[in-house]
Amino acid sequence: MSRRLGDIADVLGLGVDGDPDLMIDGVATLANAGPSQLGFLANPRYRQQLDDCRAGAVLIHPDERSHWRGAALLSRHPYADFARAAALFENCADLPAGIHPSAVINDDATVDAAAHVGAHVSIGARSRVEAGAVIGPGCVIGEDCVVGRDSRLLSRVSLVCRVRLGERVLVHPGAVIGADGFGLAMHDGRWIKVPQQGGVVIGDDCEIGANTCIDRGALDDTVLEEDVRLDNLVQIGHNVVIGAHTAMAGCCAVAGSARIGRYCLIAGGVGIAGHIEIADKVTVTAMSLVTHSIREPGTYSSGTPLMPNADWRRSAVQFKRLQRKNDKDAASSGRNARNSEE
Amino acid sequence: MSRRLGDIADVLGLGVDGDPDLMIDGVATLANAGPSQLGFLANPRYRQQLDDCRAGAVLIHPDERSHWRGAALLSRHPYADFARAAALFENCADLPAGIHPSAVINDDATVDAAAHVGAHVSIGARSRVEAGAVIGPGCVIGEDCVVGRDSRLLSRVSLVCRVRLGERVLVHPGAVIGADGFGLAMHDGRWIKVPQQGGVVIGDDCEIGANTCIDRGALDDTVLEEDVRLDNLVQIGHNVVIGAHTAMAGCCAVAGSARIGRYCLIAGGVGIAGHIEIADKVTVTAMSLVTHSIREPGTYSSGTPLMPNADWRRSAVQFKRLQRKNDKDAASSGRNARNSEE
Amino acid sequence: MSRRLGDIADVLGLGVDGDPDLMIDGVATLANAGPSQLGFLANPRYRQQLDDCRAGAVLIHPDERSHWRGAALLSRHPYADFARAAALFENCADLPAGIHPSAVINDDATVDAAAHVGAHVSIGARSRVEAGAVIGPGCVIGEDCVVGRDSRLLSRVSLVCRVRLGERVLVHPGAVIGADGFGLAMHDGRWIKVPQQGGVVIGDDCEIGANTCIDRGALDDTVLEEDVRLDNLVQIGHNVVIGAHTAMAGCCAVAGSARIGRYCLIAGGVGIAGHIEIADKVTVTAMSLVTHSIREPGTYSSGTPLMPNADWRRSAVQFKRLQRKNDKDAASSGRNARNSEE
Repeated sequence: MSRRLGDIADVLGLGVDGDPDLMIDGVATLANAGPSQLGFLANPRYRQQLDDCRAGAVLIHPDERSHWRGAALLSRHPYADFARAAALFENCADLPAGIHPSAVINDDATVDAAAHVGAHVSIGARSRVEAGAVIGPGCVIGEDCVVGRDSRLLSRVSLVCRVRLGERVLVHPGAVIGADGFGLAMHDGRWIKVPQQGGVVIGDDCEIGANTCIDRGALDDTVLEEDVRLDNLVQIGHNVVIGAHTAMAGCCAVAGSARIGRYCLIAGGVGIAGHIEIADKVTVTAMSLVTHSIREPGTYSSGTPLMPNADWRRSAVQFKRLQRKNDKDAASSGRNARNSEE
Repeated sequence: MSRRLGDIADVLGLGVDGDPDLMIDGVATLANAGPSQLGFLANPRYRQQLDDCRAGAVLIHPDERSHWRGAALLSRHPYADFARAAALFENCADLPAGIHPSAVINDDATVDAAAHVGAHVSIGARSRVEAGAVIGPGCVIGEDCVVGRDSRLLSRVSLVCRVRLGERVLVHPGAVIGADGFGLAMHDGRWIKVPQQGGVVIGDDCEIGANTCIDRGALDDTVLEEDVRLDNLVQIGHNVVIGAHTAMAGCCAVAGSARIGRYCLIAGGVGIAGHIEIADKVTVTAMSLVTHSIREPGTYSSGTPLMPNADWRRSAVQFKRLQRKNDKDAASSGRNARNSEE
Repeated sequence: MSRRLGDIADVLGLGVDGDPDLMIDGVATLANAGPSQLGFLANPRYRQQLDDCRAGAVLIHPDERSHWRGAALLSRHPYADFARAAALFENCADLPAGIHPSAVINDDATVDAAAHVGAHVSIGARSRVEAGAVIGPGCVIGEDCVVGRDSRLLSRVSLVCRVRLGERVLVHPGAVIGADGFGLAMHDGRWIKVPQQGGVVIGDDCEIGANTCIDRGALDDTVLEEDVRLDNLVQIGHNVVIGAHTAMAGCCAVAGSARIGRYCLIAGGVGIAGHIEIADKVTVTAMSLVTHSIREPGTYSSGTPLMPNADWRRSAVQFKRLQRKNDKDAASSGRNARNSEE
């Protein structure tokens, strides 16, 4: 599918500087774009790639315009507008409505006539699939679940029990939503399982990564507000609440009953302890461990820098010895350092 | 299903203080419980929620009894007894025995007539499913596996090869048990795969979280003793042995041939190196890395505290510089610090 | 299947010291090997197990020969040669060619007559399965994918879109290859999804662990060169490139557009930031975080040593206080320490 450059500019609300009749049939990186493709410069670091770029046009900030000799779409938010431009060229074949004959649908489940249910799907009692929703091959939907309008479970997704997805939710393969939370009580030297009876509520426009797990609540629900974005292999414990527009990168883990604010950015591999609260607009850097509540917006970190191993071993020995310094400090100041550290 | 408060007390062996004829139809948090529900106070931190609580009765420690004006079940272990109470109200519909017509069962496999096998299941040669077991939709059981009495594979679980589950084992969706361990040897500049021929043995009453992986042994078996509890997205390498009643929270990883004791508590995101041993009753705090054997019970940690990023960067620079201090120390003491650090 | 010891020696190119007519029917650990099995000593640490070993023969380094009284295969690389010996005894039943009747194959897909497609598999439009390939039960292959000759997807693997596997690639259960990368742009207070249109290219002889995720590229492809070995629960972001013969242990995470060299060894739980480069032959120790490019071969680390929790808390307090020392240093040297830390 080709589009006139001028039409793309109109759809995105951008200025065009060059031939508006140029036909564009896709997007590409500056390094690889050809004469019928649209490239983009979002990071000035890549500016010199413009010299050899063969793109038909480049989406670029007005301040960078002078570095590119060809046709341009001018944007004050080049990365976001590039995303919008790329979306114009996505050719997801619309899946036909209907239920594959190999799917097994409980008699008490409801599948809208305008939904698509793929091969080898199971849908349990009292679950509902709304119009425009896509349930890809191998998905297993348990009991009392809702898949909202235009939501998509790509393949091999499990919704275990009492999971309610809003509209336009996108769930990648292998995700497990609504499994039991990790609730145990020790009794007479053995574990008793604490029954997990809550559900999971996922707001509109959320995206859930591949093999990510979101546990059902113990009594109340686990909640993702709208437009939350979780990458792959993320673990969300029972009764966690994640505020709208928060994004978490791969391999993060959030323990039970933590509450995370809105517009937070949680980098990869971060751990968040249970029963704590994180304010809105908090950024946590990669592989940090959040052990206490964060009340102020800002960026937070833990860990140590990467070092050559031989140097690191020397620093690590000294880290161990820091405790003695602490004792000396405490002795001289009369304070117990242990108490000052939560 | 409703139960008399007095009957609940009898089943659990607790005292009742209030109307034993009160009908209870479920459990709930103090904040949300209604007049026909049983709430609980396990953590004194939530004591003030008793003021507005509308629960029909509250399960509570005798020492806290005076803070609650209504009917009570008196317990010295409120959390464990609450778990037991909640279990009384679980209404898992018993799945009917039988094999779904879409399941594909090898002629040399055995499925007990009192087991349930769901839709789109595969079961391989010489595998056996015992009475009362549940094999949920989309599970794939390979060759030479055993699913013991009353064990449940909820959905989309893979038992790859030579996996033997005891009785009442619960496996959550997406778990993979018995995949090859990560055994490689470098030979002439290429990796050779070390064949993985062992199995996995999982004791009675274990619970395995969603998308958790437990590799088969290289030659001998990987072993989980009874009542081991693994949360989601945990990785257990080949030939690991985990002692009875140990619990590991989400995203932990245990490298090959590590031996973990009984009654250990391993918090989320912990890493455990291969070929080491951990004693009984060891607690490891979240995201710590265990690189050497632990011979004494107790609590162990690594990492650094969370800090505002600007402060953290300054501390991190100093951590790098600690190595020089180390050299000075070593010079003055005549010891080589590198040797003192394993 | 039994083999003469002398024949095993011939196949592996090793010397035999003992009766070449001894019949061997398998391999085992020194501790468990019986009279018809081959044991091995690869790590001198286990040398004393030779005293009680009942193996028919032991694969051993010539320098260790004197410690073992029985028949021996002599090898300068005992671990690699043991791997090769073990492979001789693997009895993977060859799966028959053909397509299980429950599989759902798109009319525009191609399955070689010499490939095996198991139960409950889906294969999408324009995908191709080559000769000798095995697609195990419950796998879902999307559109425009290639499974090269003799590659095996064991069970419940998802190839989402534009995934091209080379020859002899082995993919363990639950892996998800080709899901969308985590590409987001904030626009008017909401996330816009950046379309992910690239693919994944996986070279010959790669191995992909259980529940591991490898995302498709945003515009260009994500690439694993030949003989890359990924353990379980690894996350590979979009447009990552991993050089040949690199191995990554469980639970590693690599952020988008990172480039990792050849022959690297990445231990478990390591995080690698996006857009950085790592040279060939770099080793990173467990749970380290790589935040900047590494230009020199060698071993790199971050983190702190494991300590008893009470001691660790004291050291951790002092780590926080290090920042003040930094300020003093900076004041006295006229340098801003913050600038010296990337």
